[in-house]
Amino acid sequence: MEVNQILHMNKGDGETSYAQNSQVQGKILSVAKPIIHEAVLEILSSNNIESMGIADLGCSSGPNTLPPISYIVDAIHAKRSGLGLQLSPSSTTEFRVYLNDLFSNDFNVIFMTLPAFYNNLKQEKGPEFGSVFVSAVPGSFHGRLFPAKTLHFVHSSCSIHWLSRVPPALSNTPEEAAGSALNKGKIYISKTSPQCVLDAYSLQFHEDFSSFLKSRAEEVVGGGRMVLSLIGRPSSDPTTRESCDQWELLAHALMTLVSEGLIEEEKVDAFNIPYYAPCAEELKLVVQKEGSFVMDCVEAFEIDWDAGGSLSDDMVASGQQVAKSIRVVAESMLESHFGKDIMDHLFRKYAELLGDHLSKFRTKYTSLVISVIRKQ
Amino acid sequence: MEVNQILHMNKGDGETSYAQNSQVQGKILSVAKPIIHEAVLEILSSNNIESMGIADLGCSSGPNTLPPISYIVDAIHAKRSGLGLQLSPSSTTEFRVYLNDLFSNDFNVIFMTLPAFYNNLKQEKGPEFGSVFVSAVPGSFHGRLFPAKTLHFVHSSCSIHWLSRVPPALSNTPEEAAGSALNKGKIYISKTSPQCVLDAYSLQFHEDFSSFLKSRAEEVVGGGRMVLSLIGRPSSDPTTRESCDQWELLAHALMTLVSEGLIEEEKVDAFNIPYYAPCAEELKLVVQKEGSFVMDCVEAFEIDWDAGGSLSDDMVASGQQVAKSIRVVAESMLESHFGKDIMDHLFRKYAELLGDHLSKFRTKYTSLVISVIRKQ
Repeated sequence: MEVNQILHMNKGDGETSYAQNSQVQGKILSVAKPIIHEAVLEILSSNNIESMGIADLGCSSGPNTLPPISYIVDAIHAKRSGLGLQLSPSSTTEFRVYLNDLFSNDFNVIFMTLPAFYNNLKQEKGPEFGSVFVSAVPGSFHGRLFPAKTLHFVHSSCSIHWLSRVPPALSNTPEEAAGSALNKGKIYISKTSPQCVLDAYSLQFHEDFSSFLKSRAEEVVGGGRMVLSLIGRPSSDPTTRESCDQWELLAHALMTLVSEGLIEEEKVDAFNIPYYAPCAEELKLVVQKEGSFVMDCVEAFEIDWDAGGSLSDDMVASGQQVAKSIRVVAESMLESHFGKDIMDHLFRKYAELLGDHLSKFRTKYTSLVISVIRKQ
Repeated sequence: MEVNQILHMNKGDGETSYAQNSQVQGKILSVAKPIIHEAVLEILSSNNIESMGIADLGCSSGPNTLPPISYIVDAIHAKRSGLGLQLSPSSTTEFRVYLNDLFSNDFNVIFMTLPAFYNNLKQEKGPEFGSVFVSAVPGSFHGRLFPAKTLHFVHSSCSIHWLSRVPPALSNTPEEAAGSALNKGKIYISKTSPQCVLDAYSLQFHEDFSSFLKSRAEEVVGGGRMVLSLIGRPSSDPTTRESCDQWELLAHALMTLVSEGLIEEEKVDAFNIPYYAPCAEELKLVVQKEGSFVMDCVEAFEIDWDAGGSLSDDMVASGQQVAKSIRVVAESMLESHFGKDIMDHLFRKYAELLGDHLSKFRTKYTSLVISVIRKQ
């Protein structure tokens, strides 16, 4: 599976669009806000910056795309206002803002909102704030995206848990079809997965996060910072409910379609999601081993599956809501493997299973937020 | 009319898409190729550049979007190969490529072609060529788009003849409705237009081109260059056939729809196209008056309405072909003013008129190409 060519959040603004169903991502973003604020203040304290490079990696397209940029700009504005800085027009800082996501992300939708974004900025911050230049940089953040030493702050939310590929040991290419039986009837790490499946996922995440850090190390100036939020897990056990339940139930839904004769069992065996929820220790370990960045802090937050307690007592409705939130992130990959036709049926079944699950358990996501500093 | 919010080339790749009907723009681009090549060589001769900033302004979306970037990269590669330069990996130049167009341009389509573009580049130029980072910068080139002193070469083709707005004297806003009668039954400068219409168009172009130059002057480094191609006219007379015929016939088609009771005459009186075809002397004058750039050369090329003699003797088919080439650039503005419903009928009528015209005249476009140098 060429993840870079396939993975994208569901487009448009319809019922099963990412724009309409990204409350969890919005919540994960908002809990990281104080950490973003702090990091930006630290950058401003330790650098005299004329032209500040800011990148958001995995920006997606929807209500969560521009808020991180606003957070950053607000932090800068607050800092300057607090200092009572009266900048002359010639000393005005320029802000280069780069929005990154994969080639198939819906950047057009973001661009249509930019005139209003620029107008708000001018009205709220005044002309003395400086010029903000927003551009889009499509490509995979597992490789280089920007020229050397051009970024001061990098933000990424809900993106680094996506892997660059399905772990090769589980790959579904014909030559390696033997491997597909390793994780029979599952699509992610499960309680019943053999150790080699756990190792394959962990190894791929370590590889990907290392190459992420290595690429950013070239692009971020000494003293520059990154704040990265991702879905992780609360303990060292990779089979914990918090990091697996949503995929376990989706695998269950797929197997139900197998029993109904709608898809072949081998198809399910050959599908694994290119995703990994690490624990805080794994993140620290990779940062330390790669060596370009120093860890400033790691924090963990519990996030409800419905982003904040709006799940009603009606478990049918709640199941439908959570099913949509997974559909909008995973459908591009499922559709590419299983075909478009079964999607509605699959997610109806998934919603039922989620509803049933929610009546027994209130599983939560664990959001990990790390803040790192580029060594001088 | 908020031109910046409305104007875009027709999207997609269907029968009336810009992608399928931009042969004229392709021809205008290709005749400028030697001038682009020359300008790039001059930049490389006079500067030791580690990170080269290259912008294409009004890049659109289709087969003409990436070729200018390829021309520029080819010129650089040829220059280096000719010099037998063996660059060490650390001295490798980085190329920052910025694609600009208005907010409503279809950037998604461009981005989907980038993986193949990057692969070709790697195969053709080899890994020692350097890194190319392509990004998109949406916005109006009549204002600032880039941070200060970040560009070495700016290219623009078939874009600067678009005005930032309909000249205010001809504006169709209700308060200024009186002005709409100035250019009755016409949508651009015509033989019968009063002098004030000619003056209003000329003034708007001078204003727009001045602010274009002023913005670029901030962004382009001393010694940096721009090559700009646009549709102009061959003589100082702004009512010449070469610069007016296509709009004259479109106005005629609109008036036919008036006579058929399909649109109101006042609607046509109130519509004027935000476009101006200058002569070479006007371009020189504005460059000189603005003062930041020195004119290196201006060249004029005749371009067939069908981009190179493929017009058949079947004037019906030829008329249809030329009608489509205008439809794909002007439909966004016409549709916004007259509504979607009449478009097919309007362009059928226009094709008939063009067919009839082509049986009597072989009007050609005049493409002007100017090359300018940023003063040190």
